[in-house]
Parts: sequence; C-alpha cells; structure tokens
Amino acid sequence: MNIPALRQKIDELDQRLLALLNERAELSSSVGRWKQAHQEPVFVPEREEALMRTLVAANRGPLTSSGLRAIYREILSSSRACQKAFSVACLGAAHSAAWHAVRLRFGASDRVVPVETASELLRALEEGDAEVALLSRSDLLKAYLPKKGVLRNELGTRLFICGEVRLSDALPDDAQKSPLTAEDLAHQHDARFELPAGDDDISFLSIPQAVVDTAFKPINGSHRGAAASEPESGSAVASLLRQTTAHAGDAVFFLLSRRPVPEGPHLKTLVCISAPRGEEMDSVLRELMSASDIITTTWDTLSHGSKPGHVCHHLELEGAVAQSVVEAALVPASDKITIKHLGFYPETQVYG
Amino acid sequence: MNIPALRQKIDELDQRLLALLNERAELSSSVGRWKQAHQEPVFVPEREEALMRTLVAANRGPLTSSGLRAIYREILSSSRACQKAFSVACLGAAHSAAWHAVRLRFGASDRVVPVETASELLRALEEGDAEVALLSRSDLLKAYLPKKGVLRNELGTRLFICGEVRLSDALPDDAQKSPLTAEDLAHQHDARFELPAGDDDISFLSIPQAVVDTAFKPINGSHRGAAASEPESGSAVASLLRQTTAHAGDAVFFLLSRRPVPEGPHLKTLVCISAPRGEEMDSVLRELMSASDIITTTWDTLSHGSKPGHVCHHLELEGAVAQSVVEAALVPASDKITIKHLGFYPETQVYG
Repeated sequence: MNIPALRQKIDELDQRLLALLNERAELSSSVGRWKQAHQEPVFVPEREEALMRTLVAANRGPLTSSGLRAIYREILSSSRACQKAFSVACLGAAHSAAWHAVRLRFGASDRVVPVETASELLRALEEGDAEVALLSRSDLLKAYLPKKGVLRNELGTRLFICGEVRLSDALPDDAQKSPLTAEDLAHQHDARFELPAGDDDISFLSIPQAVVDTAFKPINGSHRGAAASEPESGSAVASLLRQTTAHAGDAVFFLLSRRPVPEGPHLKTLVCISAPRGEEMDSVLRELMSASDIITTTWDTLSHGSKPGHVCHHLELEGAVAQSVVEAALVPASDKITIKHLGFYPETQVYG
Repeated sequence: MNIPALRQKIDELDQRLLALLNERAELSSSVGRWKQAHQEPVFVPEREEALMRTLVAANRGPLTSSGLRAIYREILSSSRACQKAFSVACLGAAHSAAWHAVRLRFGASDRVVPVETASELLRALEEGDAEVALLSRSDLLKAYLPKKGVLRNELGTRLFICGEVRLSDALPDDAQKSPLTAEDLAHQHDARFELPAGDDDISFLSIPQAVVDTAFKPINGSHRGAAASEPESGSAVASLLRQTTAHAGDAVFFLLSRRPVPEGPHLKTLVCISAPRGEEMDSVLRELMSASDIITTTWDTLSHGSKPGHVCHHLELEGAVAQSVVEAALVPASDKITIKHLGFYPETQVYG
C-alpha cells in the first residue's frame, strides 16, 4: 500500500476511534452520575489497575504494554473529567517534581492543586478541594515527626496511602546496574542505619527496590538458587548507597486518600513501626521480619518515633499484608513497639 | 443501568478499543517501514497537528478537546515507537523543566535523551541520536550569542525551529489576569528594553503572548473595537513585567529539527533581526513592524547581535510569514540590519 492510501486508512480508523472514545465517555458519565448520587469516590485505584492489567493481558501487539498503559492513563483521566470535578492536591509548586509526578501518574484532564505545606494538603483533602493528594516519600517521612508531623495522627486512621508513583531516570545508571548481594547490604548495615542524635534532625535512608530485592530475596526464601554475584568493594557500595539516598527521595511519591483500598491482588503495603532507638532493637526487628513470610521491599528508618527515645521504621511490603500479619510476625517485640498500618496500594509500573 | 452493567459495557468497549488501537499501530508500522526505506522523518509536526485539528473539529463530545488531544498524544507517541527508534534530545537533566516539557509535548513511548550543553544538543541531532531537540526559550536566546552561541550558525541554515511547547501554571496568577493596554506597554517600553553594556551579559525580556496580544492587537488592526481597560499604575505594570520575565523563560520551549516545516495553515514564525544597538533603531523597527500586516506576538531583545554594537531582536509572528515578507516590511532599514528566518511551527495549545 502506498503512503496516501495508508494515511487514508489511518484517518478512517481515527474516526472510528473517536466515536468509541465518546461512547466510552458517555458510559463514564453515567457511572459518574451514579457515584455522585451515592457519594462514591471518582478515583478507585484498584479498579483502574485491574482494568489496565486485563487490557495488557489481552494485548497481542504491536502496541507495547507501556504504550497501551499510557494511552489508557489519558482515557481514564478524561473519564474522570466527565464524571465530576476531580482534583489531585500535591505538596510542591507548579512544575516541581511532585507536580510532574501527578502529571505522569494521572493525565492531562485531571486538575492539579499545588499546596505549600502538609497542613494545606490535609485541609485540601478534608474540605473536598481534592480527592487524592500526592507527596514525596521524604515529605511523607517528615510527616511522622512528633513535632512537625501534621499528618502523623491522620495517617492510617482518617487518611490512607492508596498509591505510589515511581519515576524512572532519577537513579544514576551505576545504581541500577550494580549487582548487590545480601552480604554487601549486611556489610553496610550499621553504616546505613547510624542515626544522628539531634532532636529536630530527620534522618532516613531510602534504598531502591531493586537493590533491596537482590539483597533480601535470598533471606526471604525466594531466588535461593541464584548464584551470588561477586561482592563489590565496601567503598563502592557505600558510594552507591549515598547516591541512591540522594536521589530516591525525589523519585518516589505516595498518594493519600480518605478511602482505604480494600485487601486484594497486586497490592503493596505500607506500615510504620515505632520502636526504641538502638542497634539491638533494629537487629531484633530485622531478624523477626526476615524469619516471617513477609517480603520487605524498602526499609527506611527515621530518627523520631511516636515517643521520646523511639525511632520510626517505615516499611514497604510485597502484597496485601494485614496489620494482624505484621503484628503476628513481631509478637516477641510487641510490648516495646507500636505498629501502624498506613494502607494498601496497587503495585505500579515506573513512570516517565 | 446499574453499575455492574455499566462497567461490563465499558469493559466490552475497551476490548474493541484495544483491537482498533492495535490495527492503527499496524498501519503505523507500515508507514514506518516506508519512511525508513525513503529516509523520511518519523516526526512530522504539521501532519500531527492537522490530524489533531481534524479530530477536534469532528468531536461532538462528551470528550473534551483537550482530553482528546491528550489521548492522541499518547496514541501518536506509541505510533512513533512502532515506526522506528525515535528520540527527543533535551537541554536539561532528567526531571528538569525541559525534560518535563518533552514528556508533556510528546508521550510516554518517546525516548528522551537529556544533554548538558547546546553543543551536545547539536551533536545529538547531527549524529542521529535524536530526530528532534528541545530547549527553553532562554537557552535558545543564549544560542545567538556571538561568543557562546554554538547553535548560532546552524539555526535557519541547517537546523530549524519546528515547534514550541508552552507550559501552563508557570506564570503567577496576577500576570495572567492583569488587563494590560497598549498604553501600559508603550509606557514601559524604554524600561523594558534598556540593555546592559557588558560584553558577556545576556539580557532578554520575555513577554507572555497574552500580554503582547492585548497590547499590540489594536496597533496591528485586529480587536480595534475592544474597549480599552483602565490602565494599571506604572509600578504595578513594572512589577508585573518583572514577574513574567522571571517566569516566562521556563514556560516556553522550542523544538529544533534538521527538517524545516513547509509553509502551511495554522503555523507561527520565528525570526531573528540583528540591528544596531540604540533606542532610535528599536523605535524604527517597531514602527515598521506595526505598520505592516505582520502580527508580532512576542518581541525579545538580546544585548548581542551578529556584529559588535548590534543587538538581536527575536520575534514570534502569527501565521506562516516568509523571509521575503519580513524583508519587505523592513526595507527602509535593510542596509543596517540582517534578517534570519528560523522556521515555521504549528500553533500549539498550552500543556500541563
């Protein structure tokens, strides 16, 4: 077929696509009217993720999975716009990293409400100016601080984590390629979790999921057969961890909503454990988690917990792990710690 | 219809959409094979814009025009990915404003190549690592500097402006709302174009299109009937211009390509005029442009032109205005100035 003929076929096909897209938008409007009458949320992340997974599974190409997801991100965005006024608040000015994370996770038809402080973020959710709010992992971790943490008492009680946004290209190439072993991480263990004593300091270390996977999977029973790669020299690992720590904060964002995502397939879990400060307790917790069936994908430690002398361990877990399961795993330490379940959220692809 | 029934209808419709999208991707692959055999570019901005305009004109809703454009941005992005390896270079690191401008203008399936200098941008285009390159307006203006302007001799001869990306939300609310009149702008004229004398300084002032439209449209013959709004006080306008100058540089980006966009409908034009420094010559040029049929939407002035003692006027014009038309308008000054036509590009909506 020659070019003019091919282009004519494409133009005809585009008219059929346009008709279907509008038919879909009309159905979405009907869903929206029902939702408004029943005060149901417009954004249901687990339904959107299930829809995406069904389509990706049915896709025979040549369209790629990521291309299909990107097209549907905009279709769903325009659907939400047809349902009712839908806004996402973000902690960060227009064109900040957080603002762009909203743009990449949601779509061009979703309205972004940039706010400057965690208090404003909370107010936007409470007063209904926004149905969902996005903040960076580092801002979320700051929200736990007893003094400054305005979201602290809300998280897990009135506000829930309902999603995450991971941006690509934010980690240096070296970090993505380095073959880290459990031994490497164990070797760096003390260095990573050395916390400053200052009362107002925030200290947290974000380790990218790929690195943690490599390191913890053998302990957790998966990938046992994988040949251990040659350990890197200590200083190379330390340098790598410094790099990833510097970048990971801007590359990971969380979504907050007043509606908790129910337990289901393809989810992750976020929990916060307040525990006495000290290497001994750190080791106890790590050993208990390693001995359980729970797979920890990220382990951050903040220098402040819910009480003086406490630190806050912030854990991302694979799958939907109920609070009771985490409690059961940590029973031997239960009299010393407080466990707070922050929410389930769909496992996501990397954006950007 | 109840919710499960509506959702089932949506799911069925999604399967039909998936089939159509893949049919489209196959046709695009055929176009791609033909293009590769004939060494034709993958990115043809005027064809994409014409396609978008046809669809928007045919759209009867409830899908909005901007929602439709956003969905097609991703469909076209996935098409390009099916055609051949397509990359956009950008002057700015991953997650910089320029990087995000690429993400908003192109789609998730297009590869971004971040580079650090204008020389690298040039090399990426020359060596075929990228078919298109994006840089901010302020970086483009810097590229004219005689000493540092590595793109200077390339622009309009081997490289052409083929598009622009305007981001929303980058201007303060005040600037977007202020009702500026021609009188206001005339009043600020001298202040705005006062240029520093230093040899290596870059001085340019970007005025957002909306402000210039309001100010110059009456002079240029359009909107003559519009009632002039109450002029703002001088200091308010000066403050406004300071604000917009500070922000506009990050909000406007240009696309460069080795292929010039041919003259056609719905285009804008970018020209550069090197002229002797001085208020007298500035006034002559402004009067000549005002007296012509050409509508100037943005007028920037750089403190360096193509010769010592020259400045460079950087003009965005409405429509496809050929070099000969600009030359005809400026005939009385022709012995003192040099005119360089940098390219035509489709008028675009605002992104983000």
